[in-house]
Amino acid sequence: MPDYKVYYFNVKALGEPLRFLLSYGNLPFDDVRITREEWPALKPTMPMGQMPVLEVDGKKVHQSVAMSRYLASQVGLAGADDWENLMIDTVVDTVNDFRLKIAVVSYEPDDEIKEKKLVTLNNEVIPFYLEKLDDIARDNNGYLANGKLSWADIYFTAILDYLNYMTKSELVANHPNLQKVVDNVTSIESIRNWIDKRPKTEI
Amino acid sequence: MPDYKVYYFNVKALGEPLRFLLSYGNLPFDDVRITREEWPALKPTMPMGQMPVLEVDGKKVHQSVAMSRYLASQVGLAGADDWENLMIDTVVDTVNDFRLKIAVVSYEPDDEIKEKKLVTLNNEVIPFYLEKLDDIARDNNGYLANGKLSWADIYFTAILDYLNYMTKSELVANHPNLQKVVDNVTSIESIRNWIDKRPKTEI
Repeated sequence: MPDYKVYYFNVKALGEPLRFLLSYGNLPFDDVRITREEWPALKPTMPMGQMPVLEVDGKKVHQSVAMSRYLASQVGLAGADDWENLMIDTVVDTVNDFRLKIAVVSYEPDDEIKEKKLVTLNNEVIPFYLEKLDDIARDNNGYLANGKLSWADIYFTAILDYLNYMTKSELVANHPNLQKVVDNVTSIESIRNWIDKRPKTEI
Repeated sequence: MPDYKVYYFNVKALGEPLRFLLSYGNLPFDDVRITREEWPALKPTMPMGQMPVLEVDGKKVHQSVAMSRYLASQVGLAGADDWENLMIDTVVDTVNDFRLKIAVVSYEPDDEIKEKKLVTLNNEVIPFYLEKLDDIARDNNGYLANGKLSWADIYFTAILDYLNYMTKSELVANHPNLQKVVDNVTSIESIRNWIDKRPKTEI
């Protein structure tokens, strides 16, 4: 079995899909949580000066979605063929677009600009994405692709806390099909065990 | 052979990787170019109200990177195993991050903010990404992953005109290894044929 390390800050956010996928497959991993003080010295050793980074037998790789797709293949959560993978990739990239649209407002430094952007985000962007994603989950019987569990469900559930944190809301509260996705993922024993034992962090 | 349609505006930009990949595989496709006048009526028929959209035997899909990965599998430009695919996905996602960092400045509506952001983009972001990508191309002998042609090279070459347009520059001009990637792609006969026959557009 390869030797896995996840390098990230002491937050869930973009590192959590990796931790969920490794936990799902019962693949032991070193959950390295870097402090803000340690980061400047470590930054130059990371492929693009960013985290999360996954180390597989000493080889460091980056890009959270790409790493998640790789781990999904290792734990049996990829699609059964190219078309199924396309359905998974499409919804993951849509979730990621949604995250970026939230982040660009959440991290806006200018208060005045932020207030203006928040109106569009809350009135248009968030309802649009949630409705589209809820429709997909409805059409796939409580999953995000191909009518069965895949890494798309894991990815969405794992970053949902981060999306909720940025939007100061419970995004799936009024979207029963997306809630079903979350329930389907969090009722898996290996995932539940991870959630129980992981460090408690706000983000 | 499936019936392929590419729906996009009359530009290269995010549609061009799809057209390159279909051309590479000599897969005939209907290159549907929507005018700004036609778009409002068509928008609600597209999966997320966005283009490019790929239609495969009547089924419409979206997300340019996900569609490119799918087409790459159909034309033999995916990796040989999960690790090779990870290397490809990582560099494609990095190219895409680079595109987004350029786009957020290029499309900034406020001139004053744009001027400020352009300084960071030109002095820090662009040199950083180009240097990293050039190093990758050097280490992979004129390719972006695994030391051989993959859809990462196609993706990068196909959107380069768009990146050049947004930055008003020739991004690979002083990066000989990235220039080699472009040369390797554009010297493929089926790609050269596509470039020769495609509609001439600025973007």
